Amino acid sequence: MQILIKSGTLVTASETIQADLLIDGEKIALIGHDLPASENAQIVDAHGKYVLPGGIDVHTHFDLPMFGTVSSDDHYTGHKAAAFGGTTTVIDFVPQDLPSLRANIEVWHAKADPKAAIDFSFHMNITNFNDQVAAEIPHLIDEGITTLKVFTAYNNRLRLQDGEIFQVMRIAGKHGMLTMLHAENGDVIDILVAEALAAGHTTPEWHAHTRPAWGAVEAFLRGAALAAQAEAPLYVVHMNAAGEVDQLAYVREKGLPVMGETCPQYLFFTVEDLRRPDGAKWICSPPMRTATDNQRLWEGLINGTIQVLATDHCPFFYDGTKPILYEGQPVKIPGKELGKDDFTKIPNGLPAVGDRLPIFWTTAVVSGKITPNQFVALTSTNPAKIFGLYPQKGSLMPGADADIVIWDPNKKVTYGVAYAQHRTDYNLFEGWELTGFPEKVFLRGNLIVDGREWRGRPGMGRYLYRKPFAEVL
Amino acid sequence: MQILIKSGTLVTASETIQADLLIDGEKIALIGHDLPASENAQIVDAHGKYVLPGGIDVHTHFDLPMFGTVSSDDHYTGHKAAAFGGTTTVIDFVPQDLPSLRANIEVWHAKADPKAAIDFSFHMNITNFNDQVAAEIPHLIDEGITTLKVFTAYNNRLRLQDGEIFQVMRIAGKHGMLTMLHAENGDVIDILVAEALAAGHTTPEWHAHTRPAWGAVEAFLRGAALAAQAEAPLYVVHMNAAGEVDQLAYVREKGLPVMGETCPQYLFFTVEDLRRPDGAKWICSPPMRTATDNQRLWEGLINGTIQVLATDHCPFFYDGTKPILYEGQPVKIPGKELGKDDFTKIPNGLPAVGDRLPIFWTTAVVSGKITPNQFVALTSTNPAKIFGLYPQKGSLMPGADADIVIWDPNKKVTYGVAYAQHRTDYNLFEGWELTGFPEKVFLRGNLIVDGREWRGRPGMGRYLYRKPFAEVL
Amino acid sequence: MQILIKSGTLVTASETIQADLLIDGEKIALIGHDLPASENAQIVDAHGKYVLPGGIDVHTHFDLPMFGTVSSDDHYTGHKAAAFGGTTTVIDFVPQDLPSLRANIEVWHAKADPKAAIDFSFHMNITNFNDQVAAEIPHLIDEGITTLKVFTAYNNRLRLQDGEIFQVMRIAGKHGMLTMLHAENGDVIDILVAEALAAGHTTPEWHAHTRPAWGAVEAFLRGAALAAQAEAPLYVVHMNAAGEVDQLAYVREKGLPVMGETCPQYLFFTVEDLRRPDGAKWICSPPMRTATDNQRLWEGLINGTIQVLATDHCPFFYDGTKPILYEGQPVKIPGKELGKDDFTKIPNGLPAVGDRLPIFWTTAVVSGKITPNQFVALTSTNPAKIFGLYPQKGSLMPGADADIVIWDPNKKVTYGVAYAQHRTDYNLFEGWELTGFPEKVFLRGNLIVDGREWRGRPGMGRYLYRKPFAEVL
Amino acid sequence: MQILIKSGTLVTASETIQADLLIDGEKIALIGHDLPASENAQIVDAHGKYVLPGGIDVHTHFDLPMFGTVSSDDHYTGHKAAAFGGTTTVIDFVPQDLPSLRANIEVWHAKADPKAAIDFSFHMNITNFNDQVAAEIPHLIDEGITTLKVFTAYNNRLRLQDGEIFQVMRIAGKHGMLTMLHAENGDVIDILVAEALAAGHTTPEWHAHTRPAWGAVEAFLRGAALAAQAEAPLYVVHMNAAGEVDQLAYVREKGLPVMGETCPQYLFFTVEDLRRPDGAKWICSPPMRTATDNQRLWEGLINGTIQVLATDHCPFFYDGTKPILYEGQPVKIPGKELGKDDFTKIPNGLPAVGDRLPIFWTTAVVSGKITPNQFVALTSTNPAKIFGLYPQKGSLMPGADADIVIWDPNKKVTYGVAYAQHRTDYNLFEGWELTGFPEKVFLRGNLIVDGREWRGRPGMGRYLYRKPFAEVL
Repeated sequence: MQILIKSGTLVTASETIQADLLIDGEKIALIGHDLPASENAQIVDAHGKYVLPGGIDVHTHFDLPMFGTVSSDDHYTGHKAAAFGGTTTVIDFVPQDLPSLRANIEVWHAKADPKAAIDFSFHMNITNFNDQVAAEIPHLIDEGITTLKVFTAYNNRLRLQDGEIFQVMRIAGKHGMLTMLHAENGDVIDILVAEALAAGHTTPEWHAHTRPAWGAVEAFLRGAALAAQAEAPLYVVHMNAAGEVDQLAYVREKGLPVMGETCPQYLFFTVEDLRRPDGAKWICSPPMRTATDNQRLWEGLINGTIQVLATDHCPFFYDGTKPILYEGQPVKIPGKELGKDDFTKIPNGLPAVGDRLPIFWTTAVVSGKITPNQFVALTSTNPAKIFGLYPQKGSLMPGADADIVIWDPNKKVTYGVAYAQHRTDYNLFEGWELTGFPEKVFLRGNLIVDGREWRGRPGMGRYLYRKPFAEVL
Repeated sequence: MQILIKSGTLVTASETIQADLLIDGEKIALIGHDLPASENAQIVDAHGKYVLPGGIDVHTHFDLPMFGTVSSDDHYTGHKAAAFGGTTTVIDFVPQDLPSLRANIEVWHAKADPKAAIDFSFHMNITNFNDQVAAEIPHLIDEGITTLKVFTAYNNRLRLQDGEIFQVMRIAGKHGMLTMLHAENGDVIDILVAEALAAGHTTPEWHAHTRPAWGAVEAFLRGAALAAQAEAPLYVVHMNAAGEVDQLAYVREKGLPVMGETCPQYLFFTVEDLRRPDGAKWICSPPMRTATDNQRLWEGLINGTIQVLATDHCPFFYDGTKPILYEGQPVKIPGKELGKDDFTKIPNGLPAVGDRLPIFWTTAVVSGKITPNQFVALTSTNPAKIFGLYPQKGSLMPGADADIVIWDPNKKVTYGVAYAQHRTDYNLFEGWELTGFPEKVFLRGNLIVDGREWRGRPGMGRYLYRKPFAEVL
Repeated sequence: MQILIKSGTLVTASETIQADLLIDGEKIALIGHDLPASENAQIVDAHGKYVLPGGIDVHTHFDLPMFGTVSSDDHYTGHKAAAFGGTTTVIDFVPQDLPSLRANIEVWHAKADPKAAIDFSFHMNITNFNDQVAAEIPHLIDEGITTLKVFTAYNNRLRLQDGEIFQVMRIAGKHGMLTMLHAENGDVIDILVAEALAAGHTTPEWHAHTRPAWGAVEAFLRGAALAAQAEAPLYVVHMNAAGEVDQLAYVREKGLPVMGETCPQYLFFTVEDLRRPDGAKWICSPPMRTATDNQRLWEGLINGTIQVLATDHCPFFYDGTKPILYEGQPVKIPGKELGKDDFTKIPNGLPAVGDRLPIFWTTAVVSGKITPNQFVALTSTNPAKIFGLYPQKGSLMPGADADIVIWDPNKKVTYGVAYAQHRTDYNLFEGWELTGFPEKVFLRGNLIVDGREWRGRPGMGRYLYRKPFAEVL
Repeated sequence: MQILIKSGTLVTASETIQADLLIDGEKIALIGHDLPASENAQIVDAHGKYVLPGGIDVHTHFDLPMFGTVSSDDHYTGHKAAAFGGTTTVIDFVPQDLPSLRANIEVWHAKADPKAAIDFSFHMNITNFNDQVAAEIPHLIDEGITTLKVFTAYNNRLRLQDGEIFQVMRIAGKHGMLTMLHAENGDVIDILVAEALAAGHTTPEWHAHTRPAWGAVEAFLRGAALAAQAEAPLYVVHMNAAGEVDQLAYVREKGLPVMGETCPQYLFFTVEDLRRPDGAKWICSPPMRTATDNQRLWEGLINGTIQVLATDHCPFFYDGTKPILYEGQPVKIPGKELGKDDFTKIPNGLPAVGDRLPIFWTTAVVSGKITPNQFVALTSTNPAKIFGLYPQKGSLMPGADADIVIWDPNKKVTYGVAYAQHRTDYNLFEGWELTGFPEKVFLRGNLIVDGREWRGRPGMGRYLYRKPFAEVL
């Protein structure tokens, strides 16, 4: 089966050209001008449209148990929402709940494999380190997992000690794996949270007050220093503070192999949003900061200090007592209301996986802040390279998987929960006017989104075995 | 006529993939896997080789009169040397000797057109500004010229006053043209030169002492500030001082549309080289600086502060009294010996156009400082974009001119004047051991270099009409 | 005659101690605890007060002809206003109107000497450079003048070419003199002014639009680079742009002997003030910038990047058609109204010499931004050291001139034209509520200001012969 | 009893004047010109000499048990050595060995009080934190202790967890106390040390390899971030890495109340010295780094980023098996030889308290890097202010303790163990040629050092009760 995408403007991380692109089966087969269509080929007219490699979101949390409930998108609904937003690959985090890393991975496969609607892979959380874990880490590569997530926060739950992180990094570095860091200072947070509650401060804004930005900044440099000492690369997730951008620029200038990610929510929102009556919608960790932080993160994206825009997608209902209709069925899942009297009980996270590309296109490309090439680099090619998926993913070049978005740059959308496809009852970008939106989305040559129509199905997403020794950008 | 390049590793500014590439006539027609060869197609086996877009050197001076002699490469010999080094496009500077800009261009066409062996375009020097010139500048676009070179040095010869540069920039900005700046402080240089001569300081090292780095640094910021005030983009040629990199980073961080170029000679050599007995070989302007400057320029290339590696190729014989054999004929052209008793009479310039890619590959890519993608960006794609040649040049994508280098990454070469193809009697990189060298070079589908064999000919190079409103990187 | 200042808190640039201070004649004689009073000694109870060295304003323009009028404070009224504000030494600029530098100085002595009410010295403007001037510069030291002012703006009027500035700097450096720089780009200004007028833009805000900040920033670095090449120190007057602070920090980090001054007006006002109906009041050169510039200048003062707070005092009447009463007499002097239809005809300058210390104390010390020690350093000790007056001036140590301010930190003042003592009809700080004000001011042991009472008189100010090879801070 | 110091050049942190200084009893009584001598006054002719406030070394370890031995200077010999080097006040650290902080202080008083030969105070180490300690900290002010030392290294021995440090800082901040930080990453060090030993790496240079500079850099920022979050000031001891200077500049630019100290050894020596046969002499913690680090620390001192030069004096014999003569008696104390087969058993520390001022004078003032005023600021006035001793100490102003050094700027000394007065068998500056040395040293008006003669005695040093809410510089 062939599909010929005619006359579109192909955008890679460095090139913008008008050409035809031929999909043959699951792969991109040819790029050329005036490609002849074979008899059975399906023709897609992309004149006036951009042809982009499918988005890659390396930071999602589907079906994740938290605070007595679960993130409201599972590996089907989340994948579907991603696809509508132009994303065709996601990487989810496997919690380390059981002693054997492999056993944890099996749990996650059991959840994800039957439901997966786009291609996916897993990161492994390392939240409990010992000799057995150390020995098991290199074998993760056989499972297709080349990336390890560690935390300097969430004492007694997820946090590793610095020495443990250092050891994880050294094992990772030796085997060509990449360590990912959640950078906050768990000690200070725990003290401030206890004090806030003791003082009767229970509203959402205290989520921000108890997780100060300086803690993120120092933990960022701490992580980078541990990586320098371990002679291993580092990737810091969800950068949120201006000082993190400063420190990322600093350590890269000093030659350290450190990379960074930010997420859409940190580009637009601040602690002021947490002060709204419905502030719980903006609760995620790390928290919203200030307008100064927003601006510095934008600078980091624009000038190349930051390599990746991901989402940390982890949605919860704002009011989980009221059902919504999802694919025609009423659904309700306990959510933010769990913490209405105590901010520490509000599930941490928000919907974003489907918002990422459209929101960023309008605010970054249409606004002239970055080029379409930078857009592709930040949302697809860089993540593919850093996470061992390139050139299978993140590329429009022949041989790559035919994960393709036909992007209509003239499409006007009034965005919000009614338009987005997340399985939750709110959207952070409610009412935003967007210009530019995915028109068609192909996953390995299969049309899974056609305008507002969903053509995907559970199980068609394929697990991606990733390669070690990926590029450090 | 078709040429099928099989199984090479295609390198663009952001992608590295193994694929076949089909040339049809002068253009790249197809990229794909296992492309079928048409009957008459010539097959090039590129297995184990890199396939790169031909190099673009935006800074050359062929056949340039200076100090009573002329640069020793003309538009044929220089093009040929460029081609052997993997460069398929050059942009040369048209001096403003006659009142009419157009008349000057005609002079340069008369010199270049019959000899051109690779594709070429022109920049226009603006060294004498008045209302007539101002009126004529926009019409340069009809001549395919979209770039204007101005100087803050060479008083009473090439220099414009700041106000004149400002006006040039505004005209340029309005019409989508780009201003290029030679940044030194002419006033100080003239005083120091006069004093040095009066004091009997006549050796080559005084060339450096009389052109202090701080003059380059301030003129750099002056140019950037003029551009900011003119709301026009700026490109600073031959960056040579650490402080220029600092200032480029500064103004880009402040959001100014300023770009920079450096050249191989500024990455390796210092004022110490001018102190050698044959120091005159290293005389060019601006002069060699210090090891600290070398290092900071490297940093600028590595971290993306600097966009382009060009050459400022302008060779002279070291000893123009002794003939060399060129294409079997003895040639001698007066050169550096003109200034053996007075450094101000030493022709300014050195051979580089053919050295650029091989020298940079070994020292930058083989050494691990940058990736092959960055190599392509700095030497081909960025120059193409900035100078209005993209996507015709600087690209491997279908539709682009089939300017292609088959690069053998395993080729070992002991480099030097005997290996390089410049028409001069010395080479700065004499005896350097290189790994990686062009194996075949195609110009618009024509094989012009095949190993050590030259297959090009005068006149086959085509003048390139460039587009205004090019991208600012 | 002895004066014993009892129990005050003496503040130097680095020390804060409670002690008695004995003045004997014109000098500070003793510092100690419980000093015994001689019989005839006058006792001043300074308990609860600060005892500060008299302010030194190194940047004033008294009785300066401009635009067909003259700055409205002469060497008497300006000195008196300075004294009421706690300043006991000023340095005024001698214009270079006559060929002989010395002749110009005589003109200025003729104006200043009979009127001077506080101690004073002169800087020499070098606005026309030739061999005769070059030869005469070293002899200025005999006149007590060790500082030379040059301009990169005001083409065809005050500006020197870069090469001339370079030569001035070298002569200065050789003889231990200091070059002072007015840093703007004259070329760009002239073009923009002509265009603005041609376009009918005549309001005060166009004064700012036609003198862009980037011009100040590049001229700053240009000056610093010229100084570096001349191996001479530099002092940049009236820093006004954030970028100047960036560049001052940069060149000092690089080890250049460059120092900077800012003035109160640049800390508080912006181009918005020029848009007021009475915007002409804020016209001075360089112009008011933005809030970002204000803040960066504050940072420069706080962290020690900037060494001196002076004023560039050069007042004009806002409405010179209406007389004011000065010492009981009606006075009117043509002023800002001269430019009511053309911003280029508005005399450039504003009153500040008396405002400097009180305004800065309230906004910098009371606000906690800087310490009283830093206040003394910025307004008295640093200027004394840099300008060759130390330890005669700028010090509370024995042997120094007894120029002393008894500063009442609890005094509340509603400031403005009615309170200030400038001979003009407006004040920029109208209605500001201040805390802390001079209570008594001594000039070489003479009480010249006693609360609101003026006890000085014309001619009691003494001309100060300054020393070359002053300290570079 | 009065002492009149005639005609010296008094140097404060901001002033340099020639004047007489009268000591009356223990205090500085008067500063003036031509002070009349009372009948019994002793006259000291200081013509041609500098008169400096006595040095203050805020970082010493006398009589400190470590690794089965004890630092070889006790509170007498160390004080004496300090005095010979021009230091009249030291602050030593009280280990937290007993549960009650007060009990520990009593131990230290018992050691120090009878022996003290110069004035002294104590810092309190907080190496074990709990509610009782938290409650006791504010009461330290009654003991004259206003400063608390914490460690991020030495796990299971001295280190506090981040949350504990945060709590210490908040208590400190609330009560006007200052937290001092030893910044290294204990986790990484412990791992590297264990590995080095396991691999048979036992030589002194492994002391440096196992304590990487990046650990110091991140711990520096971590400390600053904790202080920011605790809203408390911070003082980082013994800065040793270039990156620490970068981070100090960064956080001060961001407005954090963070200050820093370095020590002479970090300005001159590198890991190369640890590779010498007698490398154990250079073992201290943190270790020697590189020449780049040396240079950046110098920059930090010169430009004011770093506030204090102290010593971390903690000497051990190089060969404790061989006695030296001290005050005529043979003394031997086990020292560096303890670790001849295992670098982890080499006592950490080196002699410096007496070297500080002479070494720094020659290398910093004579070399022209800093002014005598900066010398006084860094070695006396700043420490006095920061540590709550000002204006009793660190000042030449009337009312201050008469701790005075008559400094002979022309004195030539070939320095080394034979000249220095430390009770140990080696000196790091062996054979250095110095220019400038203390000639006489007064402690509260008592002449304790007269050239090479010691006039002090055990017990004459007085314990200093320091004040909280000291200045943050």
